[in-house]
Amino acid sequence: MLDKTTTKPKRPGNKTKTRVRVMEDGKKRLKQDVLATEEPMEIRLISGESKQTVAVTMRTPGNDFELAAGFLHGEGIISSRDDIGKISYCTDPDVDADQLYNIVNVELRTGVEVDIRPLERNFYTTSACGVCGKASLDQLELRGCPVIGPGPEIPAEIIYSLPDKLREAQALFDSTGGLHAAALFDAEGNLVALREDVGRHNATDKLVGWALLEGRLPLSDRIVMVSGRSSFEILQKCLQAGVPMVTAISAPSSLAVDVARQFNMTLIGFLRGERFNVYSGNERIPSA
Amino acid sequence: MLDKTTTKPKRPGNKTKTRVRVMEDGKKRLKQDVLATEEPMEIRLISGESKQTVAVTMRTPGNDFELAAGFLHGEGIISSRDDIGKISYCTDPDVDADQLYNIVNVELRTGVEVDIRPLERNFYTTSACGVCGKASLDQLELRGCPVIGPGPEIPAEIIYSLPDKLREAQALFDSTGGLHAAALFDAEGNLVALREDVGRHNATDKLVGWALLEGRLPLSDRIVMVSGRSSFEILQKCLQAGVPMVTAISAPSSLAVDVARQFNMTLIGFLRGERFNVYSGNERIPSA
Repeated sequence: MLDKTTTKPKRPGNKTKTRVRVMEDGKKRLKQDVLATEEPMEIRLISGESKQTVAVTMRTPGNDFELAAGFLHGEGIISSRDDIGKISYCTDPDVDADQLYNIVNVELRTGVEVDIRPLERNFYTTSACGVCGKASLDQLELRGCPVIGPGPEIPAEIIYSLPDKLREAQALFDSTGGLHAAALFDAEGNLVALREDVGRHNATDKLVGWALLEGRLPLSDRIVMVSGRSSFEILQKCLQAGVPMVTAISAPSSLAVDVARQFNMTLIGFLRGERFNVYSGNERIPSA
Repeated sequence: MLDKTTTKPKRPGNKTKTRVRVMEDGKKRLKQDVLATEEPMEIRLISGESKQTVAVTMRTPGNDFELAAGFLHGEGIISSRDDIGKISYCTDPDVDADQLYNIVNVELRTGVEVDIRPLERNFYTTSACGVCGKASLDQLELRGCPVIGPGPEIPAEIIYSLPDKLREAQALFDSTGGLHAAALFDAEGNLVALREDVGRHNATDKLVGWALLEGRLPLSDRIVMVSGRSSFEILQKCLQAGVPMVTAISAPSSLAVDVARQFNMTLIGFLRGERFNVYSGNERIPSA
């Protein structure tokens, strides 16, 4: 119970200090270490009198409103910041102080109607429809995801330069080693924004949520780079945001490649040093 | 519609061939490449006349029954193979042939009653309870997860040896670079089982599901190793399976460490070469 007489609840940080025992070449020592914080966050969607929990996700605290907005956008629930009236931490009197910063309320603007069926389909369904890769792609089309238009053109040299820029910008990664990153670059390879999280999907949601809240969608001439692998969900979130080029340090999955090809996105993997693989959309890279 | 006159549906493989354009030092070439297959899988729980979809997860085809069993075990829905009457692919006449191998029916044994509320809590809830790290730990206690007992003792030399053994066993990893692995070792460091998936949680579910279906739970004198990072969910699944030691190539999250400490599990991270960090339960490693 949040009691005015108690200490103000502490906002959870994105790093957690701990003591760790290091074993190295048979010798042990103790040291202070820093972990990436992982805490659950609940997203509640409020529309008039109705209030509904739409997701509980394990995340690294920070940029929580962006995470909520980006999640709802990626699932096709909202399409622009105009759909949102207000985003705030939950201040219900029945919420424990500990949880205050772990519940985010997204209040729709009066008159905005949303369809939360896409979410229900993901988790609970009794119908037989839609459980194969092709059906997953069809759902994106049904949801109105447009095929990405032509452009921009990005020289290979700019693509080669992205991993170093991402690493330089990853302030947190160096100290915890436990965070995934998603970065947004412009067509000249300049870093526009970077978000981090223990969950790689969350990092992408935060990035897209930031763009949405800034009124910068669609990201038609931007590049998204993720620090790990690319999957169906990463591509889905980027497609919803209109991103023409997705690059990753590691491998894509088969379904990530399928999404990219069907919706005319450029998908790059194994981007390391002066080398990368192009799985789709090579016409955006003049020399490829 | 599955029609006897049509070609038999093809079981999806765990690798997907594709053509890829390689850019290296400014030169381009084409090559054949192999991707880790990603396809959705639906898990349906059947109890008497009731049939319910409890999850849809993106996974790499293969060991699908283990994935279904391990998922249900990790969520606290079933506790042993005796709870299961039968696991099979869905053969409903209204299911498209394409989807035949993407829907797994888990039929409970007659008389077995399960509580699927834990699942509902994860996704949809209108109550205010339980959205902070501490509450997540409390839920594991409420679910009846026991504190892990003492032992086994594992010398540091055995722990050093695990990453090489995991890599050698990862037949698929080398060719696609897109798969996470979870491996089970005995207290002498011998590999007992290995499972792979595009999703790291799935790899752990497949491993635990295998042990469950083999009647090998609890895994009281075993070591689990994961190829990436360790999170709350990985620790939760291992705790449910009674695993005393979890090791990972990369960093743990704060909540992974919290679970390990509360339930007396040994948690090791950054296991590379002759070096590792012990975050919890060092008494199982004589020299640490």
